[in-house]
Amino acid sequence: MDYVSPKEVAQTMMSAALSKSSLSIRDLLIRGCLSGALLGISVTLAYLATTQTSLPLAGALVFPVGFIIIVLLGLELVTGSFSLIPLAFFEKKITAYSMLKNLFWVFTGNLIGSVLFAALFWSASSEMGTITQPGTIEQMIIKVAEKKTLGYASHGSAGLLSAFVKGILCNWMVCMGVVMAMTSKSTPGKIIAAAIPIFIFFALGYEHAVVNMFVIPAGMMFGAKVSFSDWWLSNQLIVTLGNIIGGLLFTGVAIYYTYGKEKSPLASPSV
Amino acid sequence: MDYVSPKEVAQTMMSAALSKSSLSIRDLLIRGCLSGALLGISVTLAYLATTQTSLPLAGALVFPVGFIIIVLLGLELVTGSFSLIPLAFFEKKITAYSMLKNLFWVFTGNLIGSVLFAALFWSASSEMGTITQPGTIEQMIIKVAEKKTLGYASHGSAGLLSAFVKGILCNWMVCMGVVMAMTSKSTPGKIIAAAIPIFIFFALGYEHAVVNMFVIPAGMMFGAKVSFSDWWLSNQLIVTLGNIIGGLLFTGVAIYYTYGKEKSPLASPSV
Amino acid sequence: MDYVSPKEVAQTMMSAALSKSSLSIRDLLIRGCLSGALLGISVTLAYLATTQTSLPLAGALVFPVGFIIIVLLGLELVTGSFSLIPLAFFEKKITAYSMLKNLFWVFTGNLIGSVLFAALFWSASSEMGTITQPGTIEQMIIKVAEKKTLGYASHGSAGLLSAFVKGILCNWMVCMGVVMAMTSKSTPGKIIAAAIPIFIFFALGYEHAVVNMFVIPAGMMFGAKVSFSDWWLSNQLIVTLGNIIGGLLFTGVAIYYTYGKEKSPLASPSV
Amino acid sequence: MDYVSPKEVAQTMMSAALSKSSLSIRDLLIRGCLSGALLGISVTLAYLATTQTSLPLAGALVFPVGFIIIVLLGLELVTGSFSLIPLAFFEKKITAYSMLKNLFWVFTGNLIGSVLFAALFWSASSEMGTITQPGTIEQMIIKVAEKKTLGYASHGSAGLLSAFVKGILCNWMVCMGVVMAMTSKSTPGKIIAAAIPIFIFFALGYEHAVVNMFVIPAGMMFGAKVSFSDWWLSNQLIVTLGNIIGGLLFTGVAIYYTYGKEKSPLASPSV
Amino acid sequence: MDYVSPKEVAQTMMSAALSKSSLSIRDLLIRGCLSGALLGISVTLAYLATTQTSLPLAGALVFPVGFIIIVLLGLELVTGSFSLIPLAFFEKKITAYSMLKNLFWVFTGNLIGSVLFAALFWSASSEMGTITQPGTIEQMIIKVAEKKTLGYASHGSAGLLSAFVKGILCNWMVCMGVVMAMTSKSTPGKIIAAAIPIFIFFALGYEHAVVNMFVIPAGMMFGAKVSFSDWWLSNQLIVTLGNIIGGLLFTGVAIYYTYGKEKSPLASPSV
Repeated sequence: MDYVSPKEVAQTMMSAALSKSSLSIRDLLIRGCLSGALLGISVTLAYLATTQTSLPLAGALVFPVGFIIIVLLGLELVTGSFSLIPLAFFEKKITAYSMLKNLFWVFTGNLIGSVLFAALFWSASSEMGTITQPGTIEQMIIKVAEKKTLGYASHGSAGLLSAFVKGILCNWMVCMGVVMAMTSKSTPGKIIAAAIPIFIFFALGYEHAVVNMFVIPAGMMFGAKVSFSDWWLSNQLIVTLGNIIGGLLFTGVAIYYTYGKEKSPLASPSV
Repeated sequence: MDYVSPKEVAQTMMSAALSKSSLSIRDLLIRGCLSGALLGISVTLAYLATTQTSLPLAGALVFPVGFIIIVLLGLELVTGSFSLIPLAFFEKKITAYSMLKNLFWVFTGNLIGSVLFAALFWSASSEMGTITQPGTIEQMIIKVAEKKTLGYASHGSAGLLSAFVKGILCNWMVCMGVVMAMTSKSTPGKIIAAAIPIFIFFALGYEHAVVNMFVIPAGMMFGAKVSFSDWWLSNQLIVTLGNIIGGLLFTGVAIYYTYGKEKSPLASPSV
Repeated sequence: MDYVSPKEVAQTMMSAALSKSSLSIRDLLIRGCLSGALLGISVTLAYLATTQTSLPLAGALVFPVGFIIIVLLGLELVTGSFSLIPLAFFEKKITAYSMLKNLFWVFTGNLIGSVLFAALFWSASSEMGTITQPGTIEQMIIKVAEKKTLGYASHGSAGLLSAFVKGILCNWMVCMGVVMAMTSKSTPGKIIAAAIPIFIFFALGYEHAVVNMFVIPAGMMFGAKVSFSDWWLSNQLIVTLGNIIGGLLFTGVAIYYTYGKEKSPLASPSV
Repeated sequence: MDYVSPKEVAQTMMSAALSKSSLSIRDLLIRGCLSGALLGISVTLAYLATTQTSLPLAGALVFPVGFIIIVLLGLELVTGSFSLIPLAFFEKKITAYSMLKNLFWVFTGNLIGSVLFAALFWSASSEMGTITQPGTIEQMIIKVAEKKTLGYASHGSAGLLSAFVKGILCNWMVCMGVVMAMTSKSTPGKIIAAAIPIFIFFALGYEHAVVNMFVIPAGMMFGAKVSFSDWWLSNQLIVTLGNIIGGLLFTGVAIYYTYGKEKSPLASPSV
Repeated sequence: MDYVSPKEVAQTMMSAALSKSSLSIRDLLIRGCLSGALLGISVTLAYLATTQTSLPLAGALVFPVGFIIIVLLGLELVTGSFSLIPLAFFEKKITAYSMLKNLFWVFTGNLIGSVLFAALFWSASSEMGTITQPGTIEQMIIKVAEKKTLGYASHGSAGLLSAFVKGILCNWMVCMGVVMAMTSKSTPGKIIAAAIPIFIFFALGYEHAVVNMFVIPAGMMFGAKVSFSDWWLSNQLIVTLGNIIGGLLFTGVAIYYTYGKEKSPLASPSV
């Protein structure tokens, strides 16, 4: 009973898209802020696990905790929405304006929450800037922030194209996490199913727009040599574009159109 | 069936607030004492895991055990109540007096249970004070007790402000644990969902008022150079205030007002 | 549906007490013997894990396996009964004679099963005494048997008092395991919930009467310098007394009287 | 609902015994062959985990995978049948001939499957015998095969008696695994419950007749100095006899007669 | 309720075979492409875990993630189909043409998805070929690609026969994963049950046709000295043939004909 077949998942995808589209800006912002902050705290946890164990894999194993909270509490994550909201537009159930408005406010909420958490994290960790020697997690944040911007840019268009492909592969997985959570009606089922693809993308170092909304500005607060335009031009915009393509094409469209459109009354089989 | 949607969770939050508000002082004290002692034993377990493995992450992984027992047996933890009881007051379902009385007695119960467990732990571990060389766990307790009081105070207002922010971030997570437990109707679901945010805050070293009710007096019993006023002025009061703000604002109010107030009959979607 | 609220758990506690009280001596002995042997095999497994990994925490993580089998198959463990059977007596549903008879036979069954398993373990491990050089697990059993008797005794009354307090803290947890198992109607729920407090007490080295019924005589078989009176006077009787107090007061009475006596029709909330 | 009480488990034990007794020789052989091969592949996996980690405990943690498949797919394992089929004979529901016929064909099926898998494993691993230097797993198989036969025999009757006791303790656990699987109506419940006792026996190095049907002939294929009579006289027959006694007496009879015979309509309580 | 008995599993096997047979080429290609890419990303994750921990066992523990997504979302994997589709043909419910058409298009979809993911992985990892020094994962891919082709070929027919046997043993397990997933109606049940046999085959280094569709061409992209004919003649065709035999004979036929054909109304017992 717990398991939800792919056919029903496809219907859930559409109803989630419609339901999200009808939310007020206030709700999009509250839920978006919480999501941004939750991914931020997950990144600090993952870096803590990585630095303590010297195993990035350990960081990836704990990273999904924030996403799990987001999924269970129905919060708004723009990368997930990239794979759902456009389906409602393609099916002519919402307007382009509704789609863009929704994505804009969730993106904004995610950004505010991420940067706000970065500021709280910085103030607790550096004791309002009085501790100037960064700890191991803070050093890792600085290093990652520089690698994710200056690193790609230093390799020119090949580097930026690599960031773009990593954005595609990343959000293919994130949106698989969103869809996988729909395969279960139980909390443990949603937790395990949602966590798996998030673990995969983080372990493989792929690029997630909302993670970067925390890690790059946090790095800047702790002294990374990254400018605002480095953040946006060498990473945020490129990765967001990759996320849109990967999430929408390889998950949203692929799953919805192979299952959502079938007319056959036969139950869809598992492998 | 197991999974409870955020809308229903918001209703559960209010009904839990009302139900807790109606408890007798006797029940608040019994349930509060048990909770305090359970967090105390969890701290000793976490420090054992940390010292045996040299990995604080291992300590954080086992720390949630006490909170899980508290949640499953419906015991009273004042940090959790900070995010629930005021909602009933805001909605004018209980008086300010009822709210304060409830929080006062749960706080008192948590304190009694924590200090009582500290005394039992001390008597077993030091064999009534006859073993004067503290073991590795006891040494860690002493060190942490000093760091959590003298450590912050030595950095002046920046240090105390850092403790305050760590109190905010801590109870944002603890109350997420309380709310996450409400997303499931099954025991495994409640266990996993509740444990996740507790693991996060302990791993990141955030400040929890009830944990400190054990670790600071226990440290004092084993010889930490911490005075009663160090305990309360450099930590307990500041952290409690941070806990109130974090738990109430970032979890209680945020979740309740984005889900509890909606009038729409549409089911709230997950991400 | 799976989760059982604390109020219902309190009722289950009383009905379990009554049901256990009505068992025949034959059933108490069969179920008691199996429980004793199951805890015995769990101890050997835990020591194997500890010696192979050099991490006592690993031993504690695997130790609950025997208790899980006991809980799922409804077997009889006297330490658990300490927190349940007296409730039926306090409520005047059984006589003092019934209570004592039940506890006596379960204690006896646990003792027989523990010593019988010790004998089988010794005969397999020492090949009927022909292998005189004990292996690593056997050495640990010898060492623990001496520490749990001669160790306490050598510190005089402070040492014995420490054993008594460790008995209190131990059975607070064991009985929490019994009660936690009642919070779930599913096998995975019972397994996880029951295992948690058992893991805690074993990791922290607390004193459990039935565990000691195996480890001390087994140590004696392998050559520990422990006499029959060392076993009973420096450990078994003191720890059993501590177990009675901890299990009955901090779990049985605390949980039953805060939940079982309420008349209010309101559902009891989780934290 | 998922959890099945011990009373119902006792009934399931009898109905499983009757149902197994009615199977055709063809089905006993197919299901027996698969079980033998599944335990064989589990042994190779366990030895791989042991040699890679240098922790036999890791091997024991992965070993139950084959038994889990056997339980979920209802396949036939003669060691499990030792604790069930005779109950139907004792209760005069099947004849001695039916009992012996069933056990004979399942034993035969297990033996064929084990040896067939050993041959496939040997052909893949040694590339049809052209690779003469055995790998680490193969070396471990050789060593274990010699220890389990020549090892016991070299210690004379004390060694063989030790093998016999290890056979008793082993199948006490294996049959606990069979019975534990019956305590749950869910797949995760069956998996966890069944795996626990299997993990215990393998970690503690006890002797299982069907495991030995793979590991001893496989060792012989890779060059262990073990003769056919060493296999059967110094291990297989003795261990099988121990398995019959342990599984039937300590699990089958103990559980069935304390729960299956009660007439009381009272629900059997958990601890 | 969650658990599905073997008899019902046998029926599910046939209905899945029929349902899959009726899918359009478009759906077979979409679902096949996703499956190929998902196994590809799982391989990169497994190699990352292996290289970070120096424990191939860790790689095997994370490898099943892709298969889990495939199972939960009902995607198409040709190796799984080898054990199901022919059953419908044997039972004369589909024609040989339908069977071959289905297997051909799923094989093609798997191949396209695998190679496409290899190309995306290569472009992100090598930054469009500008980074010429391969990383640790890439080095492992190169090495494995050479070992899986040139390695076998260098040992002549004995090597190729070994690859064939490893293909048989591999798909025995993969198809056990497909069938095991059918033993549960819950998402956690399907996840655990499906993951177990996949973990086994990957840990033991057996040969899977679709895994090789990624790892060999990916190795070639990064510079492995493997030609197109090495790929197909020394591995892909041989392994595919082994996969057909192992999956069909040892899982599909064995399970279906011992359970699916029984006429008896008696419930099939678990062990």
